[in-house]
Amino acid sequence: MKRIALLLALALALAARADEGMWTFDNFPSKKVQQRYRFAPDAQWLQEAQLSSVRLAGGCSGSFVSPDGLVMTNHHCAHSCIEQLSTKDKDFVALGFFAPAAENEVKCPEIELNQLVQITDVTAQIQGATKGLKPGKEFNDKRKAAMAAVEKECAAGNDKLRCDVVELYHGGQYSLYRYKRFQDVRLVFAPELAIAFFGGDPDNFNFPRYDLDVSFIRAYEDGEPARTEHYFKFSPNGAKEGDLTFVSGHPGGTDRELTMAELQYQRDVALPERLVDLAQVRGALTMYTQQSAEHHRTAEPTLFGVENSYKAIKGRYEALITPTLWNQKAARERALREKVNARPALKKKYASAWDDVARAIKSFQPRRKEYKYMEQAAGFNSPLYRIARDLVRGTEELQKPNGERLREYTDGKLPQLRQKLFSQAPIYDEFETFKLTYGLTKLREELGADHPFVKKVLGKKSPQELALELVKTKLYDVKVREQLWQAGREAVVASKDPMIQFALLVDPDARAVRKWHDEEIETLGISAAERIAATKFELEGKSNYPDATFTLRLSYGAVKGYDENGRHVNPFTTFAGAYERATGRDPYKLPDSWIRANESKQVNPSTPLDFCTTNDIIGGNSGSPVFDKDRQIVGLIFDGNIQSLGGDYGFDETVNRAVAVHSAALIEALDHIYGARRIVDELKGGPGAAAGAAAK
Amino acid sequence: MKRIALLLALALALAARADEGMWTFDNFPSKKVQQRYRFAPDAQWLQEAQLSSVRLAGGCSGSFVSPDGLVMTNHHCAHSCIEQLSTKDKDFVALGFFAPAAENEVKCPEIELNQLVQITDVTAQIQGATKGLKPGKEFNDKRKAAMAAVEKECAAGNDKLRCDVVELYHGGQYSLYRYKRFQDVRLVFAPELAIAFFGGDPDNFNFPRYDLDVSFIRAYEDGEPARTEHYFKFSPNGAKEGDLTFVSGHPGGTDRELTMAELQYQRDVALPERLVDLAQVRGALTMYTQQSAEHHRTAEPTLFGVENSYKAIKGRYEALITPTLWNQKAARERALREKVNARPALKKKYASAWDDVARAIKSFQPRRKEYKYMEQAAGFNSPLYRIARDLVRGTEELQKPNGERLREYTDGKLPQLRQKLFSQAPIYDEFETFKLTYGLTKLREELGADHPFVKKVLGKKSPQELALELVKTKLYDVKVREQLWQAGREAVVASKDPMIQFALLVDPDARAVRKWHDEEIETLGISAAERIAATKFELEGKSNYPDATFTLRLSYGAVKGYDENGRHVNPFTTFAGAYERATGRDPYKLPDSWIRANESKQVNPSTPLDFCTTNDIIGGNSGSPVFDKDRQIVGLIFDGNIQSLGGDYGFDETVNRAVAVHSAALIEALDHIYGARRIVDELKGGPGAAAGAAAK
Repeated sequence: MKRIALLLALALALAARADEGMWTFDNFPSKKVQQRYRFAPDAQWLQEAQLSSVRLAGGCSGSFVSPDGLVMTNHHCAHSCIEQLSTKDKDFVALGFFAPAAENEVKCPEIELNQLVQITDVTAQIQGATKGLKPGKEFNDKRKAAMAAVEKECAAGNDKLRCDVVELYHGGQYSLYRYKRFQDVRLVFAPELAIAFFGGDPDNFNFPRYDLDVSFIRAYEDGEPARTEHYFKFSPNGAKEGDLTFVSGHPGGTDRELTMAELQYQRDVALPERLVDLAQVRGALTMYTQQSAEHHRTAEPTLFGVENSYKAIKGRYEALITPTLWNQKAARERALREKVNARPALKKKYASAWDDVARAIKSFQPRRKEYKYMEQAAGFNSPLYRIARDLVRGTEELQKPNGERLREYTDGKLPQLRQKLFSQAPIYDEFETFKLTYGLTKLREELGADHPFVKKVLGKKSPQELALELVKTKLYDVKVREQLWQAGREAVVASKDPMIQFALLVDPDARAVRKWHDEEIETLGISAAERIAATKFELEGKSNYPDATFTLRLSYGAVKGYDENGRHVNPFTTFAGAYERATGRDPYKLPDSWIRANESKQVNPSTPLDFCTTNDIIGGNSGSPVFDKDRQIVGLIFDGNIQSLGGDYGFDETVNRAVAVHSAALIEALDHIYGARRIVDELKGGPGAAAGAAAK
Repeated sequence: MKRIALLLALALALAARADEGMWTFDNFPSKKVQQRYRFAPDAQWLQEAQLSSVRLAGGCSGSFVSPDGLVMTNHHCAHSCIEQLSTKDKDFVALGFFAPAAENEVKCPEIELNQLVQITDVTAQIQGATKGLKPGKEFNDKRKAAMAAVEKECAAGNDKLRCDVVELYHGGQYSLYRYKRFQDVRLVFAPELAIAFFGGDPDNFNFPRYDLDVSFIRAYEDGEPARTEHYFKFSPNGAKEGDLTFVSGHPGGTDRELTMAELQYQRDVALPERLVDLAQVRGALTMYTQQSAEHHRTAEPTLFGVENSYKAIKGRYEALITPTLWNQKAARERALREKVNARPALKKKYASAWDDVARAIKSFQPRRKEYKYMEQAAGFNSPLYRIARDLVRGTEELQKPNGERLREYTDGKLPQLRQKLFSQAPIYDEFETFKLTYGLTKLREELGADHPFVKKVLGKKSPQELALELVKTKLYDVKVREQLWQAGREAVVASKDPMIQFALLVDPDARAVRKWHDEEIETLGISAAERIAATKFELEGKSNYPDATFTLRLSYGAVKGYDENGRHVNPFTTFAGAYERATGRDPYKLPDSWIRANESKQVNPSTPLDFCTTNDIIGGNSGSPVFDKDRQIVGLIFDGNIQSLGGDYGFDETVNRAVAVHSAALIEALDHIYGARRIVDELKGGPGAAAGAAAK
């Protein structure tokens, strides 16, 4: 025990070690990089990397790779778009997609790109708004209003700007992130799913790996390819073993700074419940996709998401039940609390914070499932419901002043809301019937058949009966949504549409539990977390990086293999490896394009395909560029190895690896398998590029 | 902390409190019952209750209720039989079943009944065989041989006797249970599933409840109804609130005496993994049953089992993450270990046992999944595989002396093995294809696509491809199985049958991991558990009951409601309540027979339907009789309330309730809804009884 405590005291002092860290661009440890890799990014370098990076607001990362708005990301980041653009007769997910000229690029209905242009510290404004207040209604009202005000002022009514108040260090710091927003984003290229996700679920989160998980999309402005002066160029050679690599991207979330009470809640409640939920959906959805080709086409992206989450969360859970990690974290918290208790000034200010976190968790228990099923709509998992609720809630919220609205309906959030609400993405009634029947059954199971809300929602109907009624809604039609949104609250309330009526029925109960959660539970947690963060700042300064929050971060590392079960894993794979692994059966069935290219010897089999690095990344980093010290692209992040999944709680450099497509593989495949010369030229900045991109 | 420790010291001293306890018939606490309920069962009383009770070897309980071999149990205990006797054109699960005369009673292909006739203490023989041996191969060999010898000698080659060495108190005591065995068991009566399982999964493990979960089957000997002189009579009035009630039956297993290391393994590994497995199967199976009426008919009993286990294990898991229970158990173990460490004699003999248990668990980890998928065949979940494996393994094992065989192939186990192996129960290739495809996919996922065993089994085939090959087996035909069994090892090895060849391919790897498990892991655990049990005997004597082991136990209690969410739950429901709860939609759709009976006022709506008692039961007790101090049937156990699920770890008399069908409901429904006068007369011992039962 003593040895662990000692070790941890050390960790406290050094904070992030080795290649660990998802650093904000305004606190990047250039000196550390210099010490280890003999290269220190300067302000100009960081600024260029920041402006060349891009976020897919739906949950991914990407990068500008040409001056004409070309964006590189993963296939799985554009997967939904590719499916939405497909039809029964033309399935681009299976066939791949390539726009031979700019005019063939097609708009993705729901992709929004964000380019981070400015970071401002607004801690004083946000924390100041609740200074001296106890957790509760007033705390919640004031904080919400302060955030809405800061965001509104920043965007100043310009929909092309996006401004988000970002909570860093669990409330220790608030930053205002101002983005340039692109909502006209078009699909340029995607390979066949069979190679983008070669190995499927069995190989997901594994390495060695053989995937070409890439897609190219393009940002447009005013109907023209956007001019993007900040972008990454491609490296002519790619990276070799040992090379320093940077990854800029948007890790979705980590839990490295949680208290033991929070970790215990994750271990005992949240993660097992999530796993079980995902497992059952997975079982049902797999069967659904197998019922017909059309079911497969329309539901397969959802299944991919479910399986991906399932595996990721399973990895997190397994990390959390590992005694070493748990004991380290417990020792670290103990040491920190002892330090606080040893200093009267700190003790008075901060000592109660950890117990407050525990109290917030405990208080949440009795109505946790109501919050999940009534407010978070776990039983109404359909875009039709989400649309109806946005119409019902949105038209009500818009009647209030900006600062008093629910966060998601403040002025700053409206452009993204409108994009979703008026999305032209097709919705398939069969699939919605399936999901609603499933969800309503689960609602009854989890809250119990005798719960007043269940009785109110179902009455004497079976879940399937109600689902079949609800999918008769007219909300498939974007015009109907636009009319209701324009007509406002009264028209919505008067609507006879079954899904609108359903959302109206649900909303009062949902709002009640939301109010309770936001005022009683959330404020208690925030207030405690802010104090814990302040403790760490007082004792450690800002030598550490904040937990990930789906905002832009920079990590550094190197191309490096690792040891697993007593053997060394080489950091590179090749095209030849993919051909060897293929069995001809899904998910190890290579697409025809690859088989033909091999037979006709168009491809060089020794071309590197994928590789791994020590960069500290996590879900949300998908699509991130891997670049060298000259800011040249050497790869494209698409995954982490299985050992990286514990990265949610801590980084272990010996085995945690980011997995990327090699830059040479991208060029080789585009050029010699897909004949996508137009893109290759654009990436290489060659003469064809301007012609291709600016053709229209 | 001190308060808990004190409280626990008290608990240690008193052992089982209140109505807690699943008592063996040779250690029943009649004095305790006397103290609380003013009635002390004597030896004669106990003997009669024991001989009138019966076990369904597949996992349920029952009771003799007439001198002509009539057995009462639950519908869900005969559910598989009812399905096996059904055809595409005649679905007895949906329609119910009633044999109007003895000659219409139909044989259940896989039901075996066991009537416990004798209990003998064989601790000296079993523990003696391994005395002084370290855990390992020799320990395992000697112990296995001793058990096989004792069982063989007891049954003396008579297939009508079944002799099992039963491990009680986790190895603290070994008892030889000698049963009379009935393998000719015929279906007499079953209601429609819609009322047997009214409320379906949503109401399962809930109370108030409205189910007629009953079936009647009959034991036959030499083609005639068995003469059973020991049986329970029906109470003319049933039980009222506060009445003393006994339940004799076969609780399948409890974990009340596990060490903290074992509980942690259950909490962090075993239960979450089981839940996740069940959840995914549930999702897939639900979809499968919805694909066609025939899919529903053939797969629905499996789905029932999956949902039932899922809910039960969820309840167990929730109990285990409750801090109160956990802290109590931790304090109890700490107190016990401190006592041991404080006495040098005890310390020397026993102190290492707890760490040995922890070591066994830790050592199991690296190959846990191999054991599950290779030996326990988690990926080959099909009766066709089990049949093939029994042919492959059985013919090999039978070449060895009895004492050297795997436990499940010793002489004492052969009658039950043969019943399963040569069962006429239909097997449906579509359903087997589904299950095998599912299982093989899971095998690849869990062991990983690159695991040598996975490569050996799948080669380049997809799971579905392999499944479709395997279901071409000829093992559907019982004659084929009989021929191979008779022909023996060489014929099996030479067989070209795809499933036999598959089992032959799998067996060497499966045996290797089994050997490792049995010799390295299991013996370490047994040796440690025996020492922990011995510690408790030395400190507490045998004042406590052993954890449940699917052997006959007797519990006592009373008809009693309980408080839940601030309101009192009445211990009785009525027929009127069922009619009120019905919605006309599955699972709240009453069968036509019940609706007609209500419309024509044939039934008395105030008749009690279900009720609850404080008896300490658990899964395996299904079908147990509830009887009064005169040993008259007042009810039929079919469930526990949701609070009873934590009963796996400890009994909480304030809320833990057994749920039973009321004896009056049984008579009322048989007589006035089903016109099953023949059974009513037999139960009441009336004049029609003998005629009906002995008609053939």
